[in-house]
Amino acid sequence: MRGSDQPSQTASGRSFAGIADNIRPGCAASTEIRLALASVADRSDMVRHKLEEQWPQRSGRLYSICRYALLPNGKLFRPVLLLESTAAVGGELASSLPAAAGAEYGHVASLIHDDIIDGDNLRRGRPSVQHKYGIDDAIVAGDALIFHLFANLAECRSTGVPDGYVVSALAAVARAGLDLCYGQALELEMCRNRHFDLESYMKMARLKTGALFRGACECGAILGGGSPKWVQQLAAYGEHLGLAFQIRDDVLPYVSDTETTGKPVTSDVDNGRLTLPVILAYKFAGQQEREGISAALSSSVDPVQTLDFLRGVLGRTGAVDMAVEMAGKYAEVSRQALQGLPFSPSRDRLEYFAELVIVRDR
Amino acid sequence: MRGSDQPSQTASGRSFAGIADNIRPGCAASTEIRLALASVADRSDMVRHKLEEQWPQRSGRLYSICRYALLPNGKLFRPVLLLESTAAVGGELASSLPAAAGAEYGHVASLIHDDIIDGDNLRRGRPSVQHKYGIDDAIVAGDALIFHLFANLAECRSTGVPDGYVVSALAAVARAGLDLCYGQALELEMCRNRHFDLESYMKMARLKTGALFRGACECGAILGGGSPKWVQQLAAYGEHLGLAFQIRDDVLPYVSDTETTGKPVTSDVDNGRLTLPVILAYKFAGQQEREGISAALSSSVDPVQTLDFLRGVLGRTGAVDMAVEMAGKYAEVSRQALQGLPFSPSRDRLEYFAELVIVRDR
Repeated sequence: MRGSDQPSQTASGRSFAGIADNIRPGCAASTEIRLALASVADRSDMVRHKLEEQWPQRSGRLYSICRYALLPNGKLFRPVLLLESTAAVGGELASSLPAAAGAEYGHVASLIHDDIIDGDNLRRGRPSVQHKYGIDDAIVAGDALIFHLFANLAECRSTGVPDGYVVSALAAVARAGLDLCYGQALELEMCRNRHFDLESYMKMARLKTGALFRGACECGAILGGGSPKWVQQLAAYGEHLGLAFQIRDDVLPYVSDTETTGKPVTSDVDNGRLTLPVILAYKFAGQQEREGISAALSSSVDPVQTLDFLRGVLGRTGAVDMAVEMAGKYAEVSRQALQGLPFSPSRDRLEYFAELVIVRDR
Repeated sequence: MRGSDQPSQTASGRSFAGIADNIRPGCAASTEIRLALASVADRSDMVRHKLEEQWPQRSGRLYSICRYALLPNGKLFRPVLLLESTAAVGGELASSLPAAAGAEYGHVASLIHDDIIDGDNLRRGRPSVQHKYGIDDAIVAGDALIFHLFANLAECRSTGVPDGYVVSALAAVARAGLDLCYGQALELEMCRNRHFDLESYMKMARLKTGALFRGACECGAILGGGSPKWVQQLAAYGEHLGLAFQIRDDVLPYVSDTETTGKPVTSDVDNGRLTLPVILAYKFAGQQEREGISAALSSSVDPVQTLDFLRGVLGRTGAVDMAVEMAGKYAEVSRQALQGLPFSPSRDRLEYFAELVIVRDR
């Protein structure tokens, strides 16, 4: 399915292949991942083509805003997970394609609304929707993309998916969306209450990020006609992969830079977000440093200065290393969830993703 | 289904029976409507019981916010339309009930997000969600209710609705939600550009309000197993009923008061909203009055003063009477759309709703 006229766009874009290019040279897994991901580009190309097909250049403000948020596309991680999960249970990629694009709509909707809440002005290296178009239109655009997600799910009937599978997928996707919202609300609450608690963090991350990854894998497996056991396995895979992904996301401000990540590395501290490294540092810091952490995240001082301060404390307490280790453990659990699935290139790639998410720099 | 232990709650609540109580005594249709609506209370009771069953008292911030927005319930107009549409095609009310509650979730989600956009602090006579809980949580709560809507649609499988009907309903509901968003965006654009244009208004109203009414009726008819022709008829009924409803909504600030409507009558002028009476007044006003209208809606002067000024211009141009007449015409078109449906108490009630929407005071 890869468009032969656009190979460079794929190689240089923010696709999986793009991520692989960005893995640090010193990383042991990088060569293996690079080889495996060459074929992943096919999947993300399929999704990108679907997005371009569903969102041609057209007038209309809300339409343009949605299009701006979707194209040029991001990593397309969730859509690719959905497609690989379909293929891993022996299903047809083409029949899951509308749902895969839908997974991106749901994800981008949450980014648009997140950026309003966080007041973030940069996303994927460009002005965020709320910054470019204002909060009012950003609220409506996020809502519209949620409805587009479900419209695309209904479209799977026309690609030959049996109605029963579509209804099961509907239930799974709605549940994932709900978990995402409850996770976002929990995160807001943790930030408000300055609740440096590991258990709350894990619950929040499982809901906020784990659920959408789980939903994508579960949906893909259901639409592909997977047995209940396989569907459950891929759901568990997705959830733990999502946890590993989120932890890596939390670590990024301490190991990457704004140019690479495409959003300000100061965003988390700027929003007083209780990320895993910070929570771990707080857990293992002395009383004085604890007060420093708490004050740093509460105050409205220069976020760059705050980030520098936190980098110091995180280094001394070994919090970043601990977080990296935890990400590794969740990635390992996600890999183990695949055991018993039929051997296939898709299963191999799902396994590689578990390596990829914990070494990515963006 | 009406709970015999709670008759007073229904009679005094913001249900259909409550609306009927509120119809002005001088209105010719009031007695007939009062009689017909006695049995409608059964439907709204069913929905209210379903809401109470799905939202018991429980802890958790987001849960509490959603519950606050839903209960005590509003008019439950859209859920009742959905149920009557199911019954009108010979379907089982109980099997459509989760979707009926879902229609309320979708509607309330749009109210929560609307109140953020408009900065409205009062809704259903109580603090709006954004005013009580803040904008951040209000964004997430609106999102959550959209996902709850779709979760409820999936639940219709467990009430015995065939999967094929659920998928068709999914497509109809997603389309309605999308239209709603595009209508909201169009309204924002019209307000920004001070575009006093009747055609744009009709398009906006059809999308913003017509679509959700259409979606409710279409969804109910589909889930009830209606033939494609009946589904189409009920969709047309809903869309035109929604237009009549919206026009009546626009007229309310000029014929009702804040206490009766449960939201500030100054809200529309405060938000510089181009409602139908204002657009009609502009169309038929002289140059000087046009400038007055434009200035009144643009400026940040006292909204009560603005409303008084507009009441004067609207009276002189006959704009309110014209709008009332238009609402009547759309109500008539909606009634005609029902021709050919089997005669039933549900069809009768749907016809009465077309009378009701254009005489209500809230």
